[in-house]
Amino acid sequence: MLTAATDPGHPLVGAVLRARGSAEAWELVRRGAIADEAGPPQRTGRTRRPEAWQARARDVDGDRLLEQAADAGARLVVPGDPEWPGRLDSLGDGRPYALWVRGHGDLRHACLRAVAVVGARSASAYGLHVASGLAHDLARDAWSVVSGGAYGIDAAAHRGCLAGGAATVAVLACGPDRLYPGGNERLFAEVVEQGVVATEHAPGARPTRHGFLVRNRVIAALAPGTVVVEAGLRSGALNTARHAQELSRTVMAVPGPVTSALSAGCHRLLRDWNAVCVTDAADVAEQLGAVGEELRAGGGTVMAADGLDPATRTVLEAVPDRKGAGPAVIATAAGVGMDEALRRLGLLAAGGFIERAPSGWRVRRGAGDEER
Amino acid sequence: MLTAATDPGHPLVGAVLRARGSAEAWELVRRGAIADEAGPPQRTGRTRRPEAWQARARDVDGDRLLEQAADAGARLVVPGDPEWPGRLDSLGDGRPYALWVRGHGDLRHACLRAVAVVGARSASAYGLHVASGLAHDLARDAWSVVSGGAYGIDAAAHRGCLAGGAATVAVLACGPDRLYPGGNERLFAEVVEQGVVATEHAPGARPTRHGFLVRNRVIAALAPGTVVVEAGLRSGALNTARHAQELSRTVMAVPGPVTSALSAGCHRLLRDWNAVCVTDAADVAEQLGAVGEELRAGGGTVMAADGLDPATRTVLEAVPDRKGAGPAVIATAAGVGMDEALRRLGLLAAGGFIERAPSGWRVRRGAGDEER
Repeated sequence: MLTAATDPGHPLVGAVLRARGSAEAWELVRRGAIADEAGPPQRTGRTRRPEAWQARARDVDGDRLLEQAADAGARLVVPGDPEWPGRLDSLGDGRPYALWVRGHGDLRHACLRAVAVVGARSASAYGLHVASGLAHDLARDAWSVVSGGAYGIDAAAHRGCLAGGAATVAVLACGPDRLYPGGNERLFAEVVEQGVVATEHAPGARPTRHGFLVRNRVIAALAPGTVVVEAGLRSGALNTARHAQELSRTVMAVPGPVTSALSAGCHRLLRDWNAVCVTDAADVAEQLGAVGEELRAGGGTVMAADGLDPATRTVLEAVPDRKGAGPAVIATAAGVGMDEALRRLGLLAAGGFIERAPSGWRVRRGAGDEER
Repeated sequence: MLTAATDPGHPLVGAVLRARGSAEAWELVRRGAIADEAGPPQRTGRTRRPEAWQARARDVDGDRLLEQAADAGARLVVPGDPEWPGRLDSLGDGRPYALWVRGHGDLRHACLRAVAVVGARSASAYGLHVASGLAHDLARDAWSVVSGGAYGIDAAAHRGCLAGGAATVAVLACGPDRLYPGGNERLFAEVVEQGVVATEHAPGARPTRHGFLVRNRVIAALAPGTVVVEAGLRSGALNTARHAQELSRTVMAVPGPVTSALSAGCHRLLRDWNAVCVTDAADVAEQLGAVGEELRAGGGTVMAADGLDPATRTVLEAVPDRKGAGPAVIATAAGVGMDEALRRLGLLAAGGFIERAPSGWRVRRGAGDEER
């Protein structure tokens, strides 16, 4: 209900949530008293809008929201849930209060080995070609692609990732029932089929300009690195790159012809040493390999196999190491029923123990000791 | 005669030249004894060829060389001459023994504010367009362009510079009477008219593969920065960039489509942080502005105005500050004859006091206290 009444990602709400929990935070919003909780004003550059939130809170009907979400096939994922991506915690008080998620993919699992690929809406043929090719090759190398579901580079990146056989994550700036922009309807259907749509916005919410900028921090936070494929000097993709930099993520830029205004933003990132030059998926993987150590140190979000309950461990032991196996094979090997196997496999995927291979599930390489 | 008998830029000869002077060095080459002079072998990666040099020295006819040079309109410039570019001294023992120079331009003056622009011979239409445009805009900003006179990027850079109205410097890997490659004959004629052709190789020398690589260090040394416009992964332009880096010059690369193999060398330079990304002349000027301090510290090659003889100072005072004036106007203002004025103007240009403006000569900005 907080996602419907307040502005997503507002650090004031984030701080109160962290200190008091969601029930008390909601009560404070409803009473219009949340601003009193945070002590002296913080220099966040954002206005406090407790009055607006209070007014909106009056209209929020929690049951109705969940109903709308259920109609749209969306689930609510909150910090601490098995599907919550640990990387979002690096946003501190700016961490999403919760995410509305749609799709057959598991958000947390998809983000374990992910790259954000972003760029201009009004992309060139060159940019679209590069974005889809890059995402495809990354997907073939088991990287999922996070992007914003917009026209142009975003859509090309999602499509390339899907074509390469990996889960893609579309982070939207509207309610999970809206899937803006409508022209990408078919793409979103495929993302839901093979990946995840995630948003901080409650069902029914329309996209706003401010919402896109706030959304960009989530894209940047979900992956250890962000690639800007094509961006003019005022492109929103540069905003995502800035968020990535602030979060100490690896920022990468794809060069293009200096005669193209659509590459000017990428070239400025490169010129000012704010991004490293990448030309293909191998370059991207190499860059993210280099930050592996750092991520390992800051990680700790992958559970140790010791912590699994015996039934789940039995299923894990039935998952093959190299070539993937389907759930039926694994169920038989583990001596459990199909429903049981599917549920345990979901938990194992969310925990980063196993990954989807072209032919089913297999044990993730480095599972249990590495997240990247 | 050393340039004819020995291999240009050989550090063994350079060391002996520095220690003993040219007459003794020549005598040692002729006696086949030069290797004995240098003490224990240095790790230069190059073979010592004193026997080959001795054999060649027997055939060298100094008078004939000078005759050939005179026929080609070439002059010999040696370290210490007013036309000798001080930056070459950064090559240490690898400094050219001497340069054969052709053209109406003054080599030293042309290199005072110079950029090396290099790239692939088999350039794309994109690369040619960018190289000529970049060189043109640099020339309009009073930067001269140093390159290698080859087909492709080199030729486009020379042409752009000439079109922009600045002197260009073509550093060749053959005798000054040969002007290789022949297909650039018309270009070389224009370079001689408006700039300078320079080479370490004596009249009659043919270009060799090794000669091109050794030549590249001269291109890199003559300018405070080198721009690689378009280069495949095995392009000789990357060799020039490496020389520039070893000489602590600023290395710049122009990005291009990642789909073009001809930009792969540039992108690798950028990816490995071995070059800074530049997209236009303003970027290049900004990069070289940043190294101004360093150059100033290492400079000292521009004479102080105090050191000028009274007659030359009178001519300097007659040169306007902003809009250029022709030699006749300056001669009248200084109260000297035309020949006298031309001679003094040449000295002032070589000393970095004045520069060519579109409409004649004008005082260089920052003259006397800065070289970049």
